[in-house]
Parts: sequence; C-alpha cells; structure tokens
Amino acid sequence: MGISQTVIRRLPSYLHYLRQLPDETVNVSATAIAGALGLGDVQVRKDLALICGGGKPKIGYDRLSLINSLETRLGYKDKKLAVIAGAGKLGSAFLEFKGFEENGLNIVAAFDNDISKVGYSDSGKYIYPMSDFCDFCKTEHVLIGVITVPWQAAQSVCDMMSRSGIKAIWNFAPVKLEAPDDILIQNENLASSLALLSSHLT
Amino acid sequence: MGISQTVIRRLPSYLHYLRQLPDETVNVSATAIAGALGLGDVQVRKDLALICGGGKPKIGYDRLSLINSLETRLGYKDKKLAVIAGAGKLGSAFLEFKGFEENGLNIVAAFDNDISKVGYSDSGKYIYPMSDFCDFCKTEHVLIGVITVPWQAAQSVCDMMSRSGIKAIWNFAPVKLEAPDDILIQNENLASSLALLSSHLT
Repeated sequence: MGISQTVIRRLPSYLHYLRQLPDETVNVSATAIAGALGLGDVQVRKDLALICGGGKPKIGYDRLSLINSLETRLGYKDKKLAVIAGAGKLGSAFLEFKGFEENGLNIVAAFDNDISKVGYSDSGKYIYPMSDFCDFCKTEHVLIGVITVPWQAAQSVCDMMSRSGIKAIWNFAPVKLEAPDDILIQNENLASSLALLSSHLT
Repeated sequence: MGISQTVIRRLPSYLHYLRQLPDETVNVSATAIAGALGLGDVQVRKDLALICGGGKPKIGYDRLSLINSLETRLGYKDKKLAVIAGAGKLGSAFLEFKGFEENGLNIVAAFDNDISKVGYSDSGKYIYPMSDFCDFCKTEHVLIGVITVPWQAAQSVCDMMSRSGIKAIWNFAPVKLEAPDDILIQNENLASSLALLSSHLT
C-alpha cells in the first residue's frame, strides 16, 4: 500500500528487535529501536508511521500491537509455501536451514534434475524429481520459488515457476531472469558480495 | 585500482561464465558474454576494458588470459582464510557449503559461545569455543570473518574481529556495524529480501 521497497527492507529488523524484548515489555520508544539497530530516530518514526500511525508522546508504541501490525504488513501471518529448485550445495543448505520460518516462509520441498538426489533430506523434507515441479506447485498452491540451480538452467526454471503459479522468486543464480510483470524477482548474488570482500584484500 | 564496487560485483559472473565454457574455447566475444548473462554489450566491453584492456576486433578476448586477469583482480589467486562466528542455523549451513571456494574463500573454522557445539562439524571442519577466536585468527592470519551470530552479539563480535587482524567482514546479522575505516563490511540481509517477497504476496 504505497510503502517503498527501501522501507519494507527495514521492517524485519524492527520486528526482530521487538520480538526479542522481554515478555513484560509493554511499550517501546522509537529512540530505543533506533539506538539498538543503529538507525536514525526520525527514520524509525517515519517508517513506523506508515505501519501503525504514531507512537504516544513519552510512552512510545504498544509493543504487541506494533508486532501485530508489522507481521500483518509483511504478510507473515500466513506462512507462505515455498519450494527450492536445485538441491545442490546451496539449495541443500537452505533446505536444512530453519531460520526462514521466522520470516513467513515455509519451505516444503526441493526439486532436482539428478534422480540420485530424490528422497528425504536430513531435515526430513522430500527432494522430488524436477519433472514433478509443476504438478506439485499447482496442487499445493506454492507461491514462492527459490532458485539455486546452476545459472545456465535458471531461466528455464524461472519459466517453469511462472507456469506453476509461483508469484515471487528468490534467485541465487548469478544471472538476470525475465518473468511476467506480476512475478517479483529478488536477486541475491553471494558471489558478488564475496568478490567485494576479496578484492578489498588485494 | 579505481574500479567501482558496482563493476567488481559483476566480475564474478564473467568469471563464472568463462570458466564453464568448453575447454577448447579459445576466444570469446563481449556479445556472447553479454547475451549469456543478460547484460548490455557496451557494459561488458567497458567492464572488461578495466580488467584486461580491449578484445581484438572480430576475435574477441582470449578466454584463458581473461580468466587469469579476472582471478587476479578479484584476488582469487590466493585463497583467503575465513572463519565463521556463530555456528547456529545459518553459520552451520555455511560451514557445510562448498561453493565459497570457487570465489576465493577458504572457510577453515567456526566459533560459538555454546560449548556444546564445540567439535567437528559434518564436513570435518572444527567448531571452536568463541574464547579461542583472537588467538586462532592471529596465528592463522585469517583475513575474512563471517558474522552469523544473533544481532545482539554482532557488534561485539565485529570488535573482536577487528582486534584479531580481520580486514573484511561479511555480516549476516540484521544490524549496522561500526568498524575502523580499513575494515570492509559487506552486509547481507536475507530477512530483508524475504520481506520483499512476502509483502509482494499480501
């Protein structure tokens, strides 16, 4: 609803901070949030005004109500089903990783072209053959797809995802993908980040 | 040497593309690289001019020589030692992940405050108590630190890293860190990316 991507990117930090406060914390100030997260007071106030209106002077925000507003705006109230395409090194790591659930993502399965990978993963989630992808996603109403295949295969996986009803794609392959306008693609290039770190040391 | 971070972020894609071409490929054109990676011809030519001068008209770039120039510029020739602070869910996944080596990073160990985690990981790398961090990094000349601790602990880990001779920090904790000017901090906020995906679906 008119909230910029830049603001949305900050919301998980607010939520994370509020969730970890002691249960007995009733109110929390913008100053406390800003201090803990290394942000400016004014920015925090502006961001939160978009989510829940303003805090009360000298009292601040009601913590539970603010958590509720953030979870609603971020769409974390209903966990969204996600699948991983590509059960290689990175895909397998994500399949085992439990931290995504805190951010509304429920990874239910992975898919791979390599039939020898088919079966239960260490975390008890199933790795299916890639040929089952469309049927599975349509039947289960999967909305989020994570791409961890080699980059040569990424566009065809992206096409398959858009045919399967997936509406948001988290792409870890280092290549630009094309998809219909109603599908959001979020690119994550870990190799690029590593390049920055490494070149800083040369 | 005067190459912008934006350009450096694209170099791993070029390297990745060139490495996967068949061994018998001698020359490669900017047009072929641009087409494969979904980039513009002009951008590829400009980027590569900064790395190795120009290609030859109608022939293009010598593939092996371009790979060599990219590896040198990115500092991938000498694998750099890296350690992980925080052997929780994400840190453990990274410790098992083999893909970083292709990008010049050799993760040699992890550290955790939780003594029950001390010992060999599944991949045979050792998880040490956090109290061994400084001594280990100084002795082994570790240059890169990966932060996967909870955000409350991230700044103190960052301080410890800068005291231990680490010069580049890859921070996965959702908090801004402060460090001396000669230390590069690359922030990676996976929760922010997930927020974008999730809020697109609400």
